[in-house]
Amino acid sequence: MVSFASDYTTGAHPEILKKLGETNLEPLSGYGTDLYCDSAKQKIRKTIGKEELDVEFLVGGTQTNALIISSMLQEFEGVIAAETGHINVHESGAVEYTGHKVIALPEQNGKIAALDLANYLETFYEDETYEHMVIPGMVYISHPTEYGTLYSKKELEDISEVCKKYDLRLFMDGARLGYGLVSKQTDVTLKDIAEFCDVFYIGGTKVGAICGEAVVFTKNNKPKHFTAYIKQHGALLAKGRLLGIQFDTLFTDDLYFKISTHAMEMADQLKEIFKQHGMEFFIDSPTNQQFVTVENTLLDAFEGKVAYTVWSKPDKEHTVLRFVTSWSTTKEDLEVLESCLG
Amino acid sequence: MVSFASDYTTGAHPEILKKLGETNLEPLSGYGTDLYCDSAKQKIRKTIGKEELDVEFLVGGTQTNALIISSMLQEFEGVIAAETGHINVHESGAVEYTGHKVIALPEQNGKIAALDLANYLETFYEDETYEHMVIPGMVYISHPTEYGTLYSKKELEDISEVCKKYDLRLFMDGARLGYGLVSKQTDVTLKDIAEFCDVFYIGGTKVGAICGEAVVFTKNNKPKHFTAYIKQHGALLAKGRLLGIQFDTLFTDDLYFKISTHAMEMADQLKEIFKQHGMEFFIDSPTNQQFVTVENTLLDAFEGKVAYTVWSKPDKEHTVLRFVTSWSTTKEDLEVLESCLG
Amino acid sequence: MVSFASDYTTGAHPEILKKLGETNLEPLSGYGTDLYCDSAKQKIRKTIGKEELDVEFLVGGTQTNALIISSMLQEFEGVIAAETGHINVHESGAVEYTGHKVIALPEQNGKIAALDLANYLETFYEDETYEHMVIPGMVYISHPTEYGTLYSKKELEDISEVCKKYDLRLFMDGARLGYGLVSKQTDVTLKDIAEFCDVFYIGGTKVGAICGEAVVFTKNNKPKHFTAYIKQHGALLAKGRLLGIQFDTLFTDDLYFKISTHAMEMADQLKEIFKQHGMEFFIDSPTNQQFVTVENTLLDAFEGKVAYTVWSKPDKEHTVLRFVTSWSTTKEDLEVLESCLG
Amino acid sequence: MVSFASDYTTGAHPEILKKLGETNLEPLSGYGTDLYCDSAKQKIRKTIGKEELDVEFLVGGTQTNALIISSMLQEFEGVIAAETGHINVHESGAVEYTGHKVIALPEQNGKIAALDLANYLETFYEDETYEHMVIPGMVYISHPTEYGTLYSKKELEDISEVCKKYDLRLFMDGARLGYGLVSKQTDVTLKDIAEFCDVFYIGGTKVGAICGEAVVFTKNNKPKHFTAYIKQHGALLAKGRLLGIQFDTLFTDDLYFKISTHAMEMADQLKEIFKQHGMEFFIDSPTNQQFVTVENTLLDAFEGKVAYTVWSKPDKEHTVLRFVTSWSTTKEDLEVLESCLG
Repeated sequence: MVSFASDYTTGAHPEILKKLGETNLEPLSGYGTDLYCDSAKQKIRKTIGKEELDVEFLVGGTQTNALIISSMLQEFEGVIAAETGHINVHESGAVEYTGHKVIALPEQNGKIAALDLANYLETFYEDETYEHMVIPGMVYISHPTEYGTLYSKKELEDISEVCKKYDLRLFMDGARLGYGLVSKQTDVTLKDIAEFCDVFYIGGTKVGAICGEAVVFTKNNKPKHFTAYIKQHGALLAKGRLLGIQFDTLFTDDLYFKISTHAMEMADQLKEIFKQHGMEFFIDSPTNQQFVTVENTLLDAFEGKVAYTVWSKPDKEHTVLRFVTSWSTTKEDLEVLESCLG
Repeated sequence: MVSFASDYTTGAHPEILKKLGETNLEPLSGYGTDLYCDSAKQKIRKTIGKEELDVEFLVGGTQTNALIISSMLQEFEGVIAAETGHINVHESGAVEYTGHKVIALPEQNGKIAALDLANYLETFYEDETYEHMVIPGMVYISHPTEYGTLYSKKELEDISEVCKKYDLRLFMDGARLGYGLVSKQTDVTLKDIAEFCDVFYIGGTKVGAICGEAVVFTKNNKPKHFTAYIKQHGALLAKGRLLGIQFDTLFTDDLYFKISTHAMEMADQLKEIFKQHGMEFFIDSPTNQQFVTVENTLLDAFEGKVAYTVWSKPDKEHTVLRFVTSWSTTKEDLEVLESCLG
Repeated sequence: MVSFASDYTTGAHPEILKKLGETNLEPLSGYGTDLYCDSAKQKIRKTIGKEELDVEFLVGGTQTNALIISSMLQEFEGVIAAETGHINVHESGAVEYTGHKVIALPEQNGKIAALDLANYLETFYEDETYEHMVIPGMVYISHPTEYGTLYSKKELEDISEVCKKYDLRLFMDGARLGYGLVSKQTDVTLKDIAEFCDVFYIGGTKVGAICGEAVVFTKNNKPKHFTAYIKQHGALLAKGRLLGIQFDTLFTDDLYFKISTHAMEMADQLKEIFKQHGMEFFIDSPTNQQFVTVENTLLDAFEGKVAYTVWSKPDKEHTVLRFVTSWSTTKEDLEVLESCLG
Repeated sequence: MVSFASDYTTGAHPEILKKLGETNLEPLSGYGTDLYCDSAKQKIRKTIGKEELDVEFLVGGTQTNALIISSMLQEFEGVIAAETGHINVHESGAVEYTGHKVIALPEQNGKIAALDLANYLETFYEDETYEHMVIPGMVYISHPTEYGTLYSKKELEDISEVCKKYDLRLFMDGARLGYGLVSKQTDVTLKDIAEFCDVFYIGGTKVGAICGEAVVFTKNNKPKHFTAYIKQHGALLAKGRLLGIQFDTLFTDDLYFKISTHAMEMADQLKEIFKQHGMEFFIDSPTNQQFVTVENTLLDAFEGKVAYTVWSKPDKEHTVLRFVTSWSTTKEDLEVLESCLG
C-alpha cells in the first residue's frame, strides 16, 4: 500500500537520520543551548538574508501556534483567523486554552482578504464599547493554507498594511512553508515573508523532519525571556539537539528546498495524472496537497492499494479526497495510484 | 572533554537510532495511532505485569507533569509536592500556568514523609473555611528525586494510604525511573508503583531516548478524551512514530533495564572512586546522580577535562557538584575523571 | 432627560434599599453563609416549585457565565452559543479566559434552532478525528435573547432533547429572565426551565437589583466545592448579605414578578406608541427591549430629551435604536418619548 | 450577641446607604462611566495629593488581587508574597488560576523584610538557568497585614529600593488600609504609599462600604485597555454606580478616615480592656484586629454573648482569638465583651 494520506506518514529525510547518528555521542549542552541549534539559527538567518532575525525551535505546529500567540498577545487580546484556520478548527482549542479568543473571519479558499479584515476592524472600532469585546491583537494566516492555496505578494502586502494601521501583529503559520516557497505559482519569497510578517515559522515536521518548527521573529520583537515561555508551555526539549541537528541539516546545501522541490514535482505529476483521467479538482491548489472530488465507486479501486485522506462528503454519491506528497513520495507511488484510476 | 553534566548530554541509545532508520520509510498513521505505539504500549503493560493499564506517550517531563496534573485535577484543586520538587522549582511555573497551585511541603533528601502529609491534611480539613484555601487533589512525588534518592516500599505504601484517606491521586514523576528500579538499594518494583500510584511515568529522555515519556494510568482512570487534552496542550506529535518506535525499542529485550543497569554500574564505580579519594558526599544517593562537596581549588583540575553541574555553593570555599551517568558513560570517562582527582 | 438606554440605568427597587437599611446593623456571617442568603434560596426553590434545587448567588452576568461554564465543563470541552450570544460577543473573551472555546452556531433573531444544533453535532461526531477539534460540552442560550426574543416551550424541549442525546449540559442565561416569564407571548414557565435546563440563572441586575444573579442547578449537579470555584474566580463577596437580602426581597410577595410585569406594561405601551406613529420594528420582541429602525433625522428630536441605545446602522440614512423599560420606567417617561415623535 | 468576628459582619456605613437612596432614580450610564465614579476618582486623587493618578473601582479583594497581578505581570512572571499573605493562603488559588505562581518568602508578623527579598533575588539571578524557574515580576505586601501589623516608612522604602533594582512592581493590598493610615503607631501616609508602590488599593469592603475596592496606579502605569481586563475577569458591574457612589461618599468630608478612626478608638479601648484583664497578646497589632491567646475555659464565658474568630490552636488548653472592630462597633459592644472577662 502506498500512502498519499499526508506529508507526515513516513519518518525523517535520510540526511537527518544520518546526522543524528554521526553526532550521537557528542556531549552537548541541553535545552537548546547546543552548537547545532546555534549553527542552524545562523544558517536560517543567512537563507532569509537578514542577519538580525531571532530564531527559536519548537517541537510541533499546535504547540508553536499556541506559544507564539499567547506570548505575543496581551491577556485581553484575541487573534483573527480564517474560519477554516487550523487554530480555529483543528487544535482542540489550544489557543483558547491559553486564554485567547480566535476571532473567525470569512475565508475564500482558506485565505482571508485584506478588505474583509479592514472592514471588520473599522466596524469594531466604531463601536464605543469595543472594550467589552475581544480586542484583536494579531492576524493569523497559513501559507500554504489548509487547502494548499497561497497568498500572493500583493495580498500579503495588503494584509500587512491593514495590520500596521490597527497595530496588529501578523503571524504566518508555515507548517508547509517549503512547498509554498518552491511552488511554480508563487511570487512570494522568504525575504518577503520576513518583511511582511512580524513572526512566522518554517515548518519541519511536514517538510522532512521527524518533528520541529523554526520560529522566526522578524522585527527585533522576540518576547523577552522567551525560553521561560517555552519551558512554561512544556515545550522545551532537554535534548534540544534533536531540533538543532535537524534544522542544521535541513539548511545545509539547501536540503529544505530540495525536499520541497521533490515533493512539488511529485505533486505536479499527480495533478497531471488526475487531469489526464478527467478528475474534478475540488480546489486549485498550487502546493503539495491536491484535492479531488470523486464518485464513491472509485473508492473501491483504491482499497488496499492507495491511502488518502477523506476531506469531506459533499453529497451521498461523492467524496472529496486529499492526496499529499512529501520527501518520500516516489514515481512508483504515482504509478500505483494511476493504475487504480483505470 | 568527558561529560557527567547530566543524563541528557548525549543522543539516543544506538538501538533506537537503528530502529528509527529501519522503519523510516514505512507509511504510518499519525498522532500516536501507529502500530509501534500500540506495540510499545503492549510491551509496557506486559513488563509491568498488568494487562489493563492505560499507557500514553508524551514528549518531555515538564509537559507530562503539567498535562497529568491539569487533566486529573478539578479546576479548584492543587497538587502537593516537596518544596524541592521539580514542578515547584524548575518548570517555569508550567503547573501554575494550567491554573493549579503547587502546595509545597517540607522535604528530607527530596522526599516528603507520609506523616508530614497526614498532618498537613488533618490541619487543612479542621479549618471550617478550607474552601477559601486551595483544596489538595493530588500528591506529586519523584522517584528518584531531584537528589537521586528513592522512596522505600514502606514509604510509598504509607503515602498511598494517606492519599486514599483524603481522596488524593498519587502521581509519580519517573523521569529517571529506570535508575531507581535497578538500584541495588531499592525494594520497589514497577508493579509496586503501579499498585501504589494512580498515575506515573516511565522516563525516556533521561534513560536512553532522544525524547519521550510513557505515562501509565493504573486504576482505569485515564481522563476521558485524553487525546484531546494532549492536543490542547500542544503535546501531540504528528509523527507519533518518534515516540512509539523509541519505547517499542526500549521495551524490547529489556533494553530499558539494560541501559539503566549500565548507568548504575558506572555510578557505583564513580561512587567508589569518590570514596577512594576521600571525597565528601553531599547526600547519599543510590541512583545515577552523585553529589559531592568539594573545595573550590579542585575545580581547576576539572577545567577542560570533565564537565559536571554546579549544584550549590554552601560557602565561599566549597561547591557541591553533581555528576550523572547515563547509557553512554564509559569506563574511559571514569578514568579521565579519576585522573583529575590526583 | 428620560432614559430608555437600558434596564440598568437606575438603582435598585426601593423595597431592596429599604430592606438593606433595616438589616444594616445586624451582625451576619460572611461569604454567603448568612440567614438572608438561606432564606432567599428557600424562597426561590419554593417559587420554582422544586425543593431539591441548588441555588447560589453571584454578582454579575459575565462573571456568572464564565463561572458556570468553566465549572461545568471538562478542560477540553467548549460551549456552543448563538453567533450573537452575549458570551461570544460582549464579554471581552471572559469564557476563553477560562480556557474554553465558544463554538458559534448560526442564529435567527438571537436564537439557535434544535435542528441546526443536531446537524452540527452529527457532523462533528462523524469526523473520526473529532478529538482534534473542540468537543462540545454545553449549549448556552439566552432567554430573553440579546434581541428580546423568547424560546417557545417546544423549542426548549427540542434543544433539551438534542443536548441529552449528545451528553451536553443546557445552560440558560436569564439575565432578563423576569421579563421573559411575564411576557404575554410566552408559554414557558420557571418550572419548564428548571426541567429542560441543567443550570440557569435568574437575573437580578437587570430586573430591579443593584447587582446579583441567582444561579439554579436543577439536576442535583452543582459542582462539588462550588464555593471554592466562586472564591477562585474572585466572585465571593465578604458581605454576602448584599446578595442574600436583595434576592430575599425580590422573592418576597412576588416582587420579582411585579417588577417584571411593570416593565412589560411599560414596554407594551411603548410598542403601542411606536405602532401608532408608524415606526418600523427591527425585530418583533415580546419583552422589555424594543428595537425600531428610524430615519436619522428623528435622532435630533430625541436630543437632550430621551436616551436610548444605538443598536446598529443599517445604512447611511437609518439607525436601529433600542429602547428598554425597567422597574423605574414611568408613564411620564413614555409621554416624553411620545412627544418627541411629533 | 455582639460581634467582633470581623469588620464585614455589618452592612454599609449609614451615609452610604443614604446616598444610594438619594441618587437611586437618577439615570446613569453603566459600567463605571457614571459621574459618581468620576467624582470619586477625583476626590481620591485629591486626598492622596497627586492629580495624575489612575483610579479604578473593583468589587472585592480577591478579585482585585487576581486582576492587578495578572494584568501587570508578563505571562511567565510570578508574584512574591509573605508565606502568610492572603493571596498565598486564603484565596482558593485565584492568582494561580490566572496562571501565575505565588512565590512564598518567610515572614515575620505577616511582613516580609527587604533583606530577605534582596537575598532571594540575588540568589535567583546567580543561577544561570533562572529562566527554568518562575521569574519574579512583582512583590505583594499587605498593609495592614493578616496579623494587623504595619510596615514602617523605612521598611517600605527599603522594599521599594529592592523592587526598583530588580525591576519588580510593588503592589500593596490595602483591604484594611484605613486602619493602617489612622493608627497611632504608623509613620506611613497615603502619599508615601503612592510614592513607594506602583499600585495599591484602598479597601472599601472592610472599611465601611458594602463592597468595593479603589485601585490606584501611581506611575502612569495603568495597563492599557484596563476596562477590557475588568470585563474579561467578570468584574465589571453593569450598575457601576454602586461603587462610584460608595467611594464618592467615603471620600466626602473625610468619611473614610472618620470610619477608620472610630474603629481604631474602639480597638484601642479593646486593647486596654484586654490589658487590664491581664490577657496575653498573641501579637502586638497596631490596627483594628487584635489577637489574644486565651485558656479554653474562657470560651464558655463568651458563649452566646460575644462573637470572635478562632485564629489558631497552639495547644490543647489554649486558643488564639481574633477580635475586630469596625465602623459599627459601639461602646456597648465593648461593655458586653468586658462583662464576659469577669
